[in-house]
Amino acid sequence: MIDSNPPASPHNFIGIEPLSSEQLHNLLALAKELAECKNIEIYGKRLADKSIVTLFYEPSTRTRSSFTLAAYRLGANTLDLVPSNSALEKGENLLDTFMSLQAMNPDLFVVRHSGNDVIKQLVEQLYLPLVNAGDGTNEHPSQTLLDLLTILLHKGDAGDISKLKIALVGDLAHSRVARSFIYAMDKIPCAELRLIGPAELLADDFPVASNNSNIIIERDMDKGLEGVDLVMMLRIQRERIAEAKQQGGILANPDDYFSLYGLSPERLELAAPDALVMHPGPVNRGVEISSEVVDGPRSLILKQIEYGVYVRMAIFLSLLDSESMKRVWV
Amino acid sequence: MIDSNPPASPHNFIGIEPLSSEQLHNLLALAKELAECKNIEIYGKRLADKSIVTLFYEPSTRTRSSFTLAAYRLGANTLDLVPSNSALEKGENLLDTFMSLQAMNPDLFVVRHSGNDVIKQLVEQLYLPLVNAGDGTNEHPSQTLLDLLTILLHKGDAGDISKLKIALVGDLAHSRVARSFIYAMDKIPCAELRLIGPAELLADDFPVASNNSNIIIERDMDKGLEGVDLVMMLRIQRERIAEAKQQGGILANPDDYFSLYGLSPERLELAAPDALVMHPGPVNRGVEISSEVVDGPRSLILKQIEYGVYVRMAIFLSLLDSESMKRVWV
Amino acid sequence: MIDSNPPASPHNFIGIEPLSSEQLHNLLALAKELAECKNIEIYGKRLADKSIVTLFYEPSTRTRSSFTLAAYRLGANTLDLVPSNSALEKGENLLDTFMSLQAMNPDLFVVRHSGNDVIKQLVEQLYLPLVNAGDGTNEHPSQTLLDLLTILLHKGDAGDISKLKIALVGDLAHSRVARSFIYAMDKIPCAELRLIGPAELLADDFPVASNNSNIIIERDMDKGLEGVDLVMMLRIQRERIAEAKQQGGILANPDDYFSLYGLSPERLELAAPDALVMHPGPVNRGVEISSEVVDGPRSLILKQIEYGVYVRMAIFLSLLDSESMKRVWV
Repeated sequence: MIDSNPPASPHNFIGIEPLSSEQLHNLLALAKELAECKNIEIYGKRLADKSIVTLFYEPSTRTRSSFTLAAYRLGANTLDLVPSNSALEKGENLLDTFMSLQAMNPDLFVVRHSGNDVIKQLVEQLYLPLVNAGDGTNEHPSQTLLDLLTILLHKGDAGDISKLKIALVGDLAHSRVARSFIYAMDKIPCAELRLIGPAELLADDFPVASNNSNIIIERDMDKGLEGVDLVMMLRIQRERIAEAKQQGGILANPDDYFSLYGLSPERLELAAPDALVMHPGPVNRGVEISSEVVDGPRSLILKQIEYGVYVRMAIFLSLLDSESMKRVWV
Repeated sequence: MIDSNPPASPHNFIGIEPLSSEQLHNLLALAKELAECKNIEIYGKRLADKSIVTLFYEPSTRTRSSFTLAAYRLGANTLDLVPSNSALEKGENLLDTFMSLQAMNPDLFVVRHSGNDVIKQLVEQLYLPLVNAGDGTNEHPSQTLLDLLTILLHKGDAGDISKLKIALVGDLAHSRVARSFIYAMDKIPCAELRLIGPAELLADDFPVASNNSNIIIERDMDKGLEGVDLVMMLRIQRERIAEAKQQGGILANPDDYFSLYGLSPERLELAAPDALVMHPGPVNRGVEISSEVVDGPRSLILKQIEYGVYVRMAIFLSLLDSESMKRVWV
Repeated sequence: MIDSNPPASPHNFIGIEPLSSEQLHNLLALAKELAECKNIEIYGKRLADKSIVTLFYEPSTRTRSSFTLAAYRLGANTLDLVPSNSALEKGENLLDTFMSLQAMNPDLFVVRHSGNDVIKQLVEQLYLPLVNAGDGTNEHPSQTLLDLLTILLHKGDAGDISKLKIALVGDLAHSRVARSFIYAMDKIPCAELRLIGPAELLADDFPVASNNSNIIIERDMDKGLEGVDLVMMLRIQRERIAEAKQQGGILANPDDYFSLYGLSPERLELAAPDALVMHPGPVNRGVEISSEVVDGPRSLILKQIEYGVYVRMAIFLSLLDSESMKRVWV
C-alpha cells in the first residue's frame, strides 16, 4: 500500500504556452458552448462530489470568486485556503503543504502565487491536476481564455480573429495577462498585434518568444490605436508609478501616465468605428482608463467577468469530466 | 449582447422602513411557518443551485453564520467574502467590486457595511436582489424581523402586539437595531413603546420619523420599566463609554452605567409579572445586563438567535422563490 | 418553549482517555471499513443536510482541511469560522459564542483551542456533539485514531498491535499527540512503548496516568530504537528550542537536537529491518527528522494524512448517523 500513488494527471492547465493550437481551440469551443447554453442547469451535477482546493497566495476577490462559482455550478464543493491562516505559519515548506493536501484525495488544485516558477515545480511533483490562477509575471491563462471568448462572442466567429487588429496597452513588462495573451496569438493569430507602452514598461527587446511576425512595438499610443478593432488595456500598479518616480521617466507622475497612455473617449476615436475595449480588472479609474470608457457602450469589461465563469467551468470539465477530457486534449 | 443586462430585481430587503405593513406581516407569517414546520427538510432543495454571496465589511460571527446556515437549509451554496482579503486592497472602489461580482451571475448579495448610505446606493446600481445585514447606524432589518417573530411566538399571536407595552433600553442614538424596531412599530403598533436612556444616548429630539403616537422618551429606567411586558436591551459599545468619559456625563464609568441603565433581576421585578427580556447580542455581561438575567428564565436571548435562521430563510425565499415572492410582495 | 432545550448529546469525541477499549476498537473498525471501501461514494449522502461548524482557535491547514473534506464526502456542509474575524473581537466570552452558534441548530462542533480545559468545559455546557481537534497539551484524539489505523493497515490486523515494539520520540512533555497515543496504548496495548527524549522534554516522572506496565522511558535514542517495529517522531516547536537556549540543556542548539534525537537513515537502521516511520506533521525537515527519511520508502507520513480523512468520516458518522452510533457506542 505504501507505494500505491496514483499516476500523475495526464493534463493540467498551467499556461497558454504549453497548449497546442487545437487544444486551445477545443477549450474555447467548450467554454463557448457553456456560455451559450440556454439551460446551464444541465451541468449542475457534472462534477458532483468532486472537491476543488483553491490556494491563493496573493489576495484576489475576483478570480477566486470566479473559480468558486464555476465549481458550484458544476456541483463541486470547494475548500478555499487562505495561506495566512495556514500551516505555512508553522514553517512548513510549500511542497509539503501541497503533498499533504493531495494525500487527502481532493480532485484538483487551483493556485495563485507570486513566484514565477512555483506552479511549474508543483506540477512536476504532484499527481493531481492543477490550474494556474496566475503565477508571478509568468502566465494568467484563464484570463486569456476569457479574453479570447469575449473576442469570439463580440467580434464574430473564430475564423474572424485572423482579421482583427488588436492593441495591448500599458505595463507589458510585468503583466502575466499580456504574456499569456501574446502566447495565444501564436496559436490563433490575429492580423496585427500592437504592443503599446513606454520603454520602462516595454523594452525594445521585450522578451516574448513568439513566431507571430505580426507583433509591432509602438511607443506612441495615438499612432498605435489607429484603426484597431480591439483595445486591451492593462492594469498599471500604483506601486510601479511610485517606484519609477525615483528613476524619472514617464511614470514619474500618474497624470502624465494618463495623458500619454491612458484611454480616454477622445483617444478611442482613433480606433476603428466599431472598436471595443477590454480590461482584465480591477480597473484604476483615471489612471490607465477613464471612467467614461469603463462605463461606456464600447466597454466589454463586465462581459469579460461574466464569461470568466464559463471559461473556468470549461477548464474544470476538461480536467475532471471524462467526456470533456477526451474532447479537449486530443 | 453588450447591453443585455437583466432588469433590476423588483424586490430587495434593505430596511423595515420601506416595507408596507402588509409586506411586513407576510414576511413574519412566512418565517413563523418555517419556525413551526415539523419537517423543515421539505425546504432543503427549494433554493438548490442558487449562489448567495455574503460581504461583511464589519466583522460578525453571529449574523453571518445565521445567514449562511439559512442558505444551507434551503440547499443554496454561499460565497463568503471577507473584504480584508479582497480586491479592495488593490484600491478598487466598492461599486466596481459589486458590479464585478454581479457579472458572475450569483443570485443574491448579503451585505453589512459601516456606512449609512452604502446599501441604498448599491441597490440603485445593482440588478441582483440585496439583503441588508446591517448598515452603519441606519437599519438592521433582519434583526427586527427576528425580534418580532420572537414576540409573536412568546407573547401570543400577531393581534396581541397591539396590547403590549415594550421598553427599549440603552444606546438608542447609535443603534440600528433600535431604529429598525421603531420603524416596525409604525407598521405593527404596540400599546406603548418606551425609549429609555441617558441624554448622551437618546436626545430629547431623537430623530426617528414615526407616526406612532405611543412612543415615550423616559430618562429614569425604574419608572420606564413599570408594568412593561417586554424589555428589549441594547448593546452598549465599550468604545462609547470610553468616548463619553472625556465629556463627563452618565457614561463616564461603566459601573455607573449599570447602576443607572443596566438590567438586574431586581429591576426586572418592576416590569409585569410575566415580562420577558430580549437582547440582540452579543451581550456585555455586567455592563448593560447582568448574567443572572441573561441566563435566567425570563431571557429569550437564545430563542432570538434560533428564530434568526428561520427569518433569514424567509427573506431568501421571498427574494428567490417565485411562490414565496408572490405571497410576500403583494 | 423557553425551556425546550434538547437533551445533551449522549456522545462526544473529546479524547482517547474517556473511551472504553471496545469503543476505540469500534471506531477503528468503522474507519478501516471506510478506508477499504471500494466505492466510497455510497456514503456521499449519509450526512446530507447536516451542518458542521469548525472553530479553530489555533491556525491549522492540515487538520481543518481534513475535517472539512471528511464532511464533504458524507454530503454535509461546513461553516468554517476563523475566530480572528469573529464576535470574539467584540469581547464576547467563549461560552456565549458557542451557545449562540448552538442556538442556530447546526449539527456538530469541531473545535481546536490552545487551552487545556476549554473543550471539557464546553462539553459540560453544550448539548450538541463536539469533536476535539486538539486542545492545548491535553489530547489530539483524531490524530491518535489515524495513527492507529495506519498501524493496523501497515502492520497487520488489530491483534498484532500486541506484538509491536513502538518508539515515541521527541517533545513528549508538550505533545497532545503523544498524550492521546499513550492513552490508546492503555486500551490496545502494544508489546513495548518506549518514550525517548531529553529530560527537558520528558521528565523522569512524566505524568501520564497509564496502566500499561510496558512503558519505558529512555534517554538514549540509539538504545531506544533497537529492534522497534515503529518509530513515531514528534514535531519539535522551534519556539521550544529558543526557550530552552536560555536554560542551557540539550535544546540549546537545533543541530545538537538533531544529532541527539533526530531521525536519520543511519539511526533508523538500528530499528527492526521492516520498521516503519510515522510523524503527525507538519515536519521540520532537518530538525527532528531528515528529508531522506521523510521521503524514503519506510515513511508512512502521507498515508497517515490520507487515512485521517477516513478517521474523521468515522467520527462524524459515530456522532450523527444513527446506525453507526449504535455500532460504536456500545
